[in-house]
Amino acid sequence: MLDLIERTKRARPLDRAAMRYLARGVADGSVPDYQLAAWLMAARLNGLTAPETLALTREMVATGETLDWTELGVPVVDKHSTGGVGDKTSIALVPLVAAAGAAFVKMSGRGLGHTGGTLDKLEAIPGLRVDLDPVALRAQVGRIGCALVGQNPALVPADGALYALRDVTGTVDSVPLIASSIMAKKLAAGAGTIVLDVKHGEGAFLPDMEDARRLARAMVEIGRGAGRRVRAVLSSMERPLGRSVGNALEVREALEVLRGEGPADLWNLVRELGAHLLTLAGLTADLDAGRASLTRLRDSGEGVRRMEALIEAQGGDPCVVAEPERLPASPAVEGVLAPRDGPVQRIGPHAIAEEVLAVGESLARLGCREVALIGGEAYLRKDLCRIIRALTGMGIRVVM
Amino acid sequence: MLDLIERTKRARPLDRAAMRYLARGVADGSVPDYQLAAWLMAARLNGLTAPETLALTREMVATGETLDWTELGVPVVDKHSTGGVGDKTSIALVPLVAAAGAAFVKMSGRGLGHTGGTLDKLEAIPGLRVDLDPVALRAQVGRIGCALVGQNPALVPADGALYALRDVTGTVDSVPLIASSIMAKKLAAGAGTIVLDVKHGEGAFLPDMEDARRLARAMVEIGRGAGRRVRAVLSSMERPLGRSVGNALEVREALEVLRGEGPADLWNLVRELGAHLLTLAGLTADLDAGRASLTRLRDSGEGVRRMEALIEAQGGDPCVVAEPERLPASPAVEGVLAPRDGPVQRIGPHAIAEEVLAVGESLARLGCREVALIGGEAYLRKDLCRIIRALTGMGIRVVM
Repeated sequence: MLDLIERTKRARPLDRAAMRYLARGVADGSVPDYQLAAWLMAARLNGLTAPETLALTREMVATGETLDWTELGVPVVDKHSTGGVGDKTSIALVPLVAAAGAAFVKMSGRGLGHTGGTLDKLEAIPGLRVDLDPVALRAQVGRIGCALVGQNPALVPADGALYALRDVTGTVDSVPLIASSIMAKKLAAGAGTIVLDVKHGEGAFLPDMEDARRLARAMVEIGRGAGRRVRAVLSSMERPLGRSVGNALEVREALEVLRGEGPADLWNLVRELGAHLLTLAGLTADLDAGRASLTRLRDSGEGVRRMEALIEAQGGDPCVVAEPERLPASPAVEGVLAPRDGPVQRIGPHAIAEEVLAVGESLARLGCREVALIGGEAYLRKDLCRIIRALTGMGIRVVM
Repeated sequence: MLDLIERTKRARPLDRAAMRYLARGVADGSVPDYQLAAWLMAARLNGLTAPETLALTREMVATGETLDWTELGVPVVDKHSTGGVGDKTSIALVPLVAAAGAAFVKMSGRGLGHTGGTLDKLEAIPGLRVDLDPVALRAQVGRIGCALVGQNPALVPADGALYALRDVTGTVDSVPLIASSIMAKKLAAGAGTIVLDVKHGEGAFLPDMEDARRLARAMVEIGRGAGRRVRAVLSSMERPLGRSVGNALEVREALEVLRGEGPADLWNLVRELGAHLLTLAGLTADLDAGRASLTRLRDSGEGVRRMEALIEAQGGDPCVVAEPERLPASPAVEGVLAPRDGPVQRIGPHAIAEEVLAVGESLARLGCREVALIGGEAYLRKDLCRIIRALTGMGIRVVM
């Protein structure tokens, strides 16, 4: 291991055998944390080459199980978003793309930092389970062509340990390490076609456009190096996506988009990512045909029906699609207006996300499970503080 | 700690309070190894500023005891060599400088890498102890003005843990960290005047002259920042110092120099370092006067007598000074000649040191404690191998 550290420290590339040693060392705990930490910092400061990043990713994948969906006989697609505020894209995208003929097994994560997680959002649907066992998952995908579930812990088991160590050693913000961690899970999940939604702007993990581009390039190189069809889409997170931030509200908004309602920015992103998936997977001739196909499936209600089937298959109440008022809602909803008239200049997604989290925490202490904010365009930090002060002062519990 | 890692990762200097947190964290084990490892690699790759290095050093010193020699009423001097092959300088320097009126408490280390340690060499003197307790050490220095002993473990106790971690995380070769580790021990040992012998060339830890210069500068800055009189001398380690490599042989050569015999390069270095110490300490007006004084003390036999007193005080047999044949010697000494006639072009100190260590290991397996090689000028790696093969093939044991 000392030899590996020395090489990365001197920016001399590691070969696949070295990456195998590293990945196995993480998986079986045979390489001590302090040596991994030193290597991670050397990789963070000196970077890793594209072949090194691919080798690390493949060897991380090899530490666990991998899924094979060829028996399905249809193209299997996957999507990843680097995370943003109000990003509920997957919830609308998965059933629509499945309705277009692809198999879509979407494994999602929990909230991280200031961004919400798709799993947390989905659990706002009464009864819905995201922890399907492998047999049930395979049966469901065979029957309805899609699933929205949690990460299978048997895939890339070493990733969790490596991420936990990065989190406490200042080595999270490394493009090759981020790319490798994301793509290892995608490769292990077995899709042949992958579209990556790489966010930039204030609300993204990598606000700088150039960093986002580097991450996108690194992930595409890994995916192609591993023989997958991969494309990255750069999308803006200068403002929250759609109009709502908060778990149940975001599910509601995604369902609105499936019904042909909801905010245009969200629908545009869903349609764009879906068109890339369908085209890459060979299900439509080009992006325009893909966009048209998705619009048709939305307008015909096939997307909605596929979502109902998905929710029902995973134990949830499918009536929430037609009757979103069945979703948990806050008894006290306050619209917040801008302090003066005029067009809204911009909305800071970071500030909104942080407020939602902070408010959620303080309300949780009062016995509430969650707080929702709607009408995002008009929120200003000082208004939020005033509202929350007023609500808590009156002893009003705010739940979604 | 994560904040400290982030700052060093982004090359933003740490202040004294941060260094205090770090040093205490090492000393009491409250900062986990993996975070220290990440910080060390960030410091190795991004460097530390001079004020950071001074702050780290002072805070490392503050984790342990410090010695105070003001009661002696004479200048207290110290010396450090960054280590080389055949470097037996201290053994001759300490008694001579003490004879010139300074108090010289020299704490030395064991061999490290390919370089021998003064302690290992001294222990070739029958009966000599290097582990004096603090009371005995203070009494000896008060009586004869000098001591050649091991490092007091109560000084800079955090240094050992930090060094051990650097050793397994590829972070040994950092100029600020090396400078800090060396100077912390010197500052804690309490001398007001310190001369640093910084080696460069093939046999040195830092072969490159520019690296050696940077290390010298870093150490001088720390020493001066802590209010000491410090000077660094750059000396060549392109070839072994003197003519012998091996513990007992090196003691013998140092004693020869004290008697006015022995190789000129060793005497020149002893005289040079001593002249700097005496001048810096205010005991002689300038370097020329210092050199003259040391030559006089050597020629008058005062250096020899002081060495006899030191050996006797530390439980050794003082007769070895007059009768070096009392030192342990090998029953099988082989001179090695160059394979053809002509002037010797150069001698590789690294090759010699590595061979001595390797040969020592293989002979130890045969039941021998040590192997010595003399007549260094003529050694070539292939000859050495031939000799050793021949000796071991014949079942000849080689001890010093």
